[in-house]
Amino acid sequence: MRINDQHYRTIWVKENDPGTVCIIDQRNLPHEFVIEELKTLQDFVTAIRDMHVRGAPLIGGTAAYGLYIAAREAPEGLGFETYIEQAVIQLRNTRPTAVDLFNALERVLSALKEGTTKSEKVARAFQTANELVDESAEHCRLIGQHGLEIIKEIAEKKGGQPVNILTHCNAGWLACVDYGTATSPVYAAHDAGIAVHVWVDETRPRNQGARITAFELLNHGVPHTVIPDNTGGHLMQHGMVDLVIVGTDRTTKSGDVANKIGTYLKALAAHDNGVPFYVTLPSSTFDWTIRDGVKEIPIEQRNQDEVRFIQGLADGKITKVLLTPTESPAVNYGFDVTPARLVTGLITERGICAANESAILQLYPEAV
Amino acid sequence: MRINDQHYRTIWVKENDPGTVCIIDQRNLPHEFVIEELKTLQDFVTAIRDMHVRGAPLIGGTAAYGLYIAAREAPEGLGFETYIEQAVIQLRNTRPTAVDLFNALERVLSALKEGTTKSEKVARAFQTANELVDESAEHCRLIGQHGLEIIKEIAEKKGGQPVNILTHCNAGWLACVDYGTATSPVYAAHDAGIAVHVWVDETRPRNQGARITAFELLNHGVPHTVIPDNTGGHLMQHGMVDLVIVGTDRTTKSGDVANKIGTYLKALAAHDNGVPFYVTLPSSTFDWTIRDGVKEIPIEQRNQDEVRFIQGLADGKITKVLLTPTESPAVNYGFDVTPARLVTGLITERGICAANESAILQLYPEAV
Repeated sequence: MRINDQHYRTIWVKENDPGTVCIIDQRNLPHEFVIEELKTLQDFVTAIRDMHVRGAPLIGGTAAYGLYIAAREAPEGLGFETYIEQAVIQLRNTRPTAVDLFNALERVLSALKEGTTKSEKVARAFQTANELVDESAEHCRLIGQHGLEIIKEIAEKKGGQPVNILTHCNAGWLACVDYGTATSPVYAAHDAGIAVHVWVDETRPRNQGARITAFELLNHGVPHTVIPDNTGGHLMQHGMVDLVIVGTDRTTKSGDVANKIGTYLKALAAHDNGVPFYVTLPSSTFDWTIRDGVKEIPIEQRNQDEVRFIQGLADGKITKVLLTPTESPAVNYGFDVTPARLVTGLITERGICAANESAILQLYPEAV
Repeated sequence: MRINDQHYRTIWVKENDPGTVCIIDQRNLPHEFVIEELKTLQDFVTAIRDMHVRGAPLIGGTAAYGLYIAAREAPEGLGFETYIEQAVIQLRNTRPTAVDLFNALERVLSALKEGTTKSEKVARAFQTANELVDESAEHCRLIGQHGLEIIKEIAEKKGGQPVNILTHCNAGWLACVDYGTATSPVYAAHDAGIAVHVWVDETRPRNQGARITAFELLNHGVPHTVIPDNTGGHLMQHGMVDLVIVGTDRTTKSGDVANKIGTYLKALAAHDNGVPFYVTLPSSTFDWTIRDGVKEIPIEQRNQDEVRFIQGLADGKITKVLLTPTESPAVNYGFDVTPARLVTGLITERGICAANESAILQLYPEAV
């Protein structure tokens, strides 16, 4: 993806230095573009937990490299297994909702077991982490190609008028390794010369929409408008949204979708106004072990100060301001669950399907 | 209402100085409590347009005094009528959505016509503005008494567990002359010893919930928690909301409700989860001339910088921070319309009724 006309992924191994993994520190975007080098297990734990990186697929990729780095720093011999076990626990405990995290750790852990010597194990882990991020990028690219068809169809009906797409949070390339999930069809359409315009939910409390999705779209040259999260219902009532596309952090076997808090409200509004509501996901975000999202998906609660304080730019400096009275408490749930009945379809790397178990299993028969 | 244990209304005529009207400047709440003196028509126009005061009933009261002050400053004789006409136009143009504004101006205008000399006209306008704000406060008090019954009933079912009430924006005493509309039943219940807890939607983009409702509840000692606007759906899915109470800026004859942007999304979530959704209103917010809220109520669009910048406290100073990339545009709709089908009931000064034309007209037969 482009920033100042240079191509970036969100995570990469430093050239000629396999002990260093580079990420884009997303905390001060759009005001500061910082590349951070991760060299120790602790660096990775901090980067995921404190949201230097975020977004389900990117969390997965970062965890994969984190476990590889842990294998490098683990002692040889008897202590190796214990060190890895502890590393997995630490990485698992960074964020509770995105299932990509657990899936990625599982995969690198299997790879580690294939080797016999430490150096073999490390090599396998490195290869697997590299494969995982390449595959993740390719899945996102394919999601874009499948989603493009939906946008194309709406564009034809609108006879060249811009297709208005609403998205919530950032399921963009900065949430992934490249392309994004929800944004991938948008970039594909824009690159194919279809007129699109994106309504960007600012996405309180961490403002990933206003900060990160807007930054991405701006850099890619896609027309967009930032809106408060409260606005989408009004726009839909007045025919100003043709399509909603969002990402997901965990998707059940029956098509329930955990995504950034507030997604459920947009799904309700889309349903009430007959606006198609699509969820984009690489298969890494499926949790094949559960069916009832509202009851079974654990929802992360984060620090209340992420609600009470807001960060932005004042006089050229990143500044935090207090919004509420000092003594008023807040709560901060990271995600909510959109029931499958409100989802028009799932856009995956294998194609598009309805949000129900039988349709999902037709695309993923191996998960029966 | 109490602030630091002193009783305040939101608007009052200065003692021994009928040419000065005092308001609480709400722009820097909760961080700064400032009393502003309005002495000229222009002061009133600025105070309403730039939201030193806001909230439908308080906008009405402020406009009423504004027209009275305009009558004081109007020339005697032939120029009087023209001056008043111009004043009405200026005051009408401050805010487009709250119908209280137009109703209040209409009422003071009628009073002005009753007098023959300027001093008679001014006296009539003064008396009418005073009556209007007294009546507005009394209506809010009565709304509290009627709404109290609903809370009492839920409290009994919960056997003493706190009743969790979600509210959006500030329909509190700072939106009114006293008591508030949506908050009035909450204060009545709290004062009656019923355990209540309020989920306060922060209410982007201007954060009237996080800033003003939280400030009010804190001063009155009511337990509350600030939440991002995105959170309500999740809370309702998990049985953590017993009741939604909101205000309205304009209500149609058929029970459609224009209120702060985002109200519609909460109404959808309440409906989807079987949570009662009540709208509180003094009859001054009815617009008897229209039936279809979505089509007929004009929705104010405000400056995009209210979305792009957020104001709060940094190092003890009121500071504005930029949230979005500098080049990303935003839009800022002030209100949305909640269709009557999503409203459980209207709580008015005359009692509670269903949100449909025949039920409304039973309470307000004079509006047939």
